[in-house]
Amino acid sequence: MRKAVVLLSGGLDSATVLAQARRDGYDCYCLSVDYHQRHRAELAAAANVARALGATRHEVIALNLAQFGGSALTDDALAVPTGGLTAGIPITYVPARNTMMLSLALGWSEVLGAADIFFGANAVDYSGYPDCRPEYVKAFETMANLATKAAVEGQRLTIHTPIITLSKAEIIQRGTALGVDYSLTVSCYQADAYGHACGMCDSCRLRRAGFTSAGLADPTRYQAGAPSV
Amino acid sequence: MRKAVVLLSGGLDSATVLAQARRDGYDCYCLSVDYHQRHRAELAAAANVARALGATRHEVIALNLAQFGGSALTDDALAVPTGGLTAGIPITYVPARNTMMLSLALGWSEVLGAADIFFGANAVDYSGYPDCRPEYVKAFETMANLATKAAVEGQRLTIHTPIITLSKAEIIQRGTALGVDYSLTVSCYQADAYGHACGMCDSCRLRRAGFTSAGLADPTRYQAGAPSV
Repeated sequence: MRKAVVLLSGGLDSATVLAQARRDGYDCYCLSVDYHQRHRAELAAAANVARALGATRHEVIALNLAQFGGSALTDDALAVPTGGLTAGIPITYVPARNTMMLSLALGWSEVLGAADIFFGANAVDYSGYPDCRPEYVKAFETMANLATKAAVEGQRLTIHTPIITLSKAEIIQRGTALGVDYSLTVSCYQADAYGHACGMCDSCRLRRAGFTSAGLADPTRYQAGAPSV
Repeated sequence: MRKAVVLLSGGLDSATVLAQARRDGYDCYCLSVDYHQRHRAELAAAANVARALGATRHEVIALNLAQFGGSALTDDALAVPTGGLTAGIPITYVPARNTMMLSLALGWSEVLGAADIFFGANAVDYSGYPDCRPEYVKAFETMANLATKAAVEGQRLTIHTPIITLSKAEIIQRGTALGVDYSLTVSCYQADAYGHACGMCDSCRLRRAGFTSAGLADPTRYQAGAPSV
């Protein structure tokens, strides 16, 4: 069975991607990053998702991006917006986060002898983050194929983004068909320690609209007082 | 004054690059990575070099690459070769390390509002590491200019590699002219806690040959019993 590194945040998208990689026959090594994110509960969710979907291994690596700051997800002084999606890239954008995560996945994949990385980027129902777009992923893949000893020795690395052009509803439908238990996942940017969602941040809004549009019950565990569907 | 992020390992090459960036008029934010490297003494050296060359700030970020292993620099079970340089990429290669470091520099530069990163890669007197070659750096720069909010908003990022085509002797000559005190730097892959060098690893050999070829005294502090020049 071919090995793959799967970037697993603990959210809905990457859980779906892990399920897809498993269905495609990969031996999955899941990587999560403890980057001092406000919604640290997603890391426990990632561990549960990895177990439920039969990952071979789940590694959490620490990288304290609070040292840099500049995002509402890593700087406690910046509030997470809760008023609804607006135009432009919101303050929840974490500078170069996906580039860092893909770089870590690249390094681990080389050590493992894996030629495949799965990445749950989505460029449809998203917050306009530049490092979720297909042209970015392609450029990272090109760079990666010049970066490593494995590449120099002729092994071509592929970055799989199986949900990048799907709507949130389509992602949920696909994951449901693949057996993902979305009640295990945490998408909320300000989830509490139990993984309960606020229901008001952009990530909660995109997620809830996805379940509604997919015609499926929303299994998200909300905080007391969170707005009802 | 324009801000720049300078990747500073504590070794000879990146010290020279910092001196060049300072001479070029940049306000320098130095970044070192504590990646569980065997030669951890280079981090103290980096702090001393940053201070000596007038850096504005020096940040050390931790990233435990021993979790991945696969290199003699991060896995205690793999010995550092001391028999002299050989053909091919040696076991001191750390999978995707420079991609990770450049990614961190990219994130910090965006938070700082800096459009310039200085990187001490060298593709002449080196160990054949793929992520030191000009074509790799170019591909990273292309990717970086698709990755960030700053790029989307029109700010072009440049990765400066002022010593990439110089010989080790030329690097030392340039740094000496720029006032670098190389006695502060640590290049040895298995430096002791005081930064004293073994004199036998590839990095020590390249460094010593560089001083000899440059016709300059080698200020390196060697361990007792290290082979004499």
